[in-house]
Amino acid sequence: MSATDGADDFETIRVDLDERSYDIVIGAGVLAQAGTRIAELLPSSRAIIITDETVNSHHGDALRVSLDSAGIAQSTFAVPAGEKSKSYDTLQSVCEAVLEAGMERGDVLIAFGGGVVGDLAGFAAGVVRRGMPFVQIPTSLLAQVDSSVGGKTGINSPKGKNLVGLFNQPALVLADTALLDTLSEREMRAGYAEVAKYGLIDQPEFFSWLEKNHAAVFAGGAARRYAVATSCRAKADVVKADERENGARALLNLGHTFGHALEASVGYDATRLVHGEGVAIGMVLAHEFSHRMNHCGPEAAERVVAHLKDVGLPTRMQDVAGADFDPDTLMNAIAQDKKVQRGALTFILTRGIGQSFVSKDVPRDAVAAFLRDKLAAR
Amino acid sequence: MSATDGADDFETIRVDLDERSYDIVIGAGVLAQAGTRIAELLPSSRAIIITDETVNSHHGDALRVSLDSAGIAQSTFAVPAGEKSKSYDTLQSVCEAVLEAGMERGDVLIAFGGGVVGDLAGFAAGVVRRGMPFVQIPTSLLAQVDSSVGGKTGINSPKGKNLVGLFNQPALVLADTALLDTLSEREMRAGYAEVAKYGLIDQPEFFSWLEKNHAAVFAGGAARRYAVATSCRAKADVVKADERENGARALLNLGHTFGHALEASVGYDATRLVHGEGVAIGMVLAHEFSHRMNHCGPEAAERVVAHLKDVGLPTRMQDVAGADFDPDTLMNAIAQDKKVQRGALTFILTRGIGQSFVSKDVPRDAVAAFLRDKLAAR
Repeated sequence: MSATDGADDFETIRVDLDERSYDIVIGAGVLAQAGTRIAELLPSSRAIIITDETVNSHHGDALRVSLDSAGIAQSTFAVPAGEKSKSYDTLQSVCEAVLEAGMERGDVLIAFGGGVVGDLAGFAAGVVRRGMPFVQIPTSLLAQVDSSVGGKTGINSPKGKNLVGLFNQPALVLADTALLDTLSEREMRAGYAEVAKYGLIDQPEFFSWLEKNHAAVFAGGAARRYAVATSCRAKADVVKADERENGARALLNLGHTFGHALEASVGYDATRLVHGEGVAIGMVLAHEFSHRMNHCGPEAAERVVAHLKDVGLPTRMQDVAGADFDPDTLMNAIAQDKKVQRGALTFILTRGIGQSFVSKDVPRDAVAAFLRDKLAAR
Repeated sequence: MSATDGADDFETIRVDLDERSYDIVIGAGVLAQAGTRIAELLPSSRAIIITDETVNSHHGDALRVSLDSAGIAQSTFAVPAGEKSKSYDTLQSVCEAVLEAGMERGDVLIAFGGGVVGDLAGFAAGVVRRGMPFVQIPTSLLAQVDSSVGGKTGINSPKGKNLVGLFNQPALVLADTALLDTLSEREMRAGYAEVAKYGLIDQPEFFSWLEKNHAAVFAGGAARRYAVATSCRAKADVVKADERENGARALLNLGHTFGHALEASVGYDATRLVHGEGVAIGMVLAHEFSHRMNHCGPEAAERVVAHLKDVGLPTRMQDVAGADFDPDTLMNAIAQDKKVQRGALTFILTRGIGQSFVSKDVPRDAVAAFLRDKLAAR
């Protein structure tokens, strides 16, 4: 198992999408190679780094040193950290900053940060001058295993998350697993929820491996790289099969329909609930609801709960600070979710650990009754 | 020549772009078939009509009647008429209106208006829920022969026109040539500049035909349909060869680099200069500059001037109301134009009528000196 390789090695995963194909390079220290790798891929480009203020203060200089040493002239534009930057206004300010920097179509935008920066900057890269190349350098675990792979970009609408955006593939992804050392424990755990998700979708062995090795993943080194690489490979495979989310790609939303509704219900207040925590609770709900719909026994959800608790993630709606979820509000959020197709509710359900499937005709009443019961159980 | 066909016929041009291929249907009265044609292409869709207030008052009911009769539920969102609606703010309001109307990915957005509406609504269609199908129903001559074909969408930045946008192909274009009867003479003439452009790019026979038949094109009927169809076919051929404007598609910018600079210099004030007028003057300048650079003799520009004057279009910078163009301001606008590649100036020049070519290394000084001389000649 590659988890036993030396920690200094990099693993490269090819995302095979015809003329939009690109590499994901994973490993501790790959940030220092950003300049040479970008110069090789996009010769004689200039660059603009789009980042957030927190990432810029931790790691901005390291990236700039690497670009300088490869002769890549660059400027930096930092947005405030946090989900609020996924807005129409911030998108406009990023587009204007890119134009102000004099970027032309052959230059490169570097999205340097977590999921917010990746989604926002990837969107801007897709629309400034009708598209310029961009490189993702994800700095959170969540971004490394999820949002930086697959080309989904976007901002939030007052009507819901990610309702405005683009499919826009990067030219390169550099996932430096050593950068995760500066994350808070809470951010690290939240990203881990998406790692566990890949096991739950269709890799029961990976889920078993995580049950045994999660502490090593959190500690860093080869186990972390293995977990990130396995997650990226899983996502890349799904994206390859269904780039624009017409079918199989929907499996990646395991736990997300419930999770998004919870996030919406707290007004996307990250002090109460971050995305990965919503996904963790959402995955538990998806397994419990699958049991209630007779797709699987109760033990799948029990195993999910036990593992997520082991790593310190919330598993019940009641775990959310100041929890006061209302079933009707949650149902409205679910109905507005972009995964609704022509009025029917689509959920990712499961037949057991690693056996998820897309269910396109889930009765709305069954979901509402399930949520009422779960909330009454407090 | 198809210009002699009956006026009731429709002509269909296929834009062949693999899975993004679509038809342009051209002729007087095709608007009445919008409902049945959309229902056939996108069964069981609902629709949102994005239009402007002027077009809505003239033709909105006709479109709604056609959709109703085909059983297509629809709502309408009208933006103020005019270039100012190609803004970040209006884009946001359109996206929110589409979400508010409950549109899902399988529903259809109908861009019903001139170039502004097509560019704005086509952009919104590309980003709401990361893309939904859209149909262009262009109502101005300019939109019928240019902006509705080829998939360029976008808004203006304070730094220049169309600097933010997408390549996004429609599912269908319906060009009802009878709708042009409600245009002002000035709008009709401005659109005609783009018709003449196709002759000047690479169809000298079409330009000769226009020299003889322009009055019939303005009058309507078969000659108008022939001119629109010939223009659309010419644009479709170029777009097929170069969808994302990496090469040959640049020829479509004949007259546009100068024209955009003039528009920018008057602050996009349509009371002084509309796009087509800028293109008309720009095409004259492109021919005159080509002569100055020894690519052609003086007679090409003389013929262009004579024809554009015949139809009532401006041909000199001095024709613009309150003309006070400054060569340095124009040069700055040209340098910021999106067709600048890595600092060198790219222009569409010509070897004669219908013999245009892309020139990627035009000396900046030669352009500046040319503009100074032209402006001094007042």
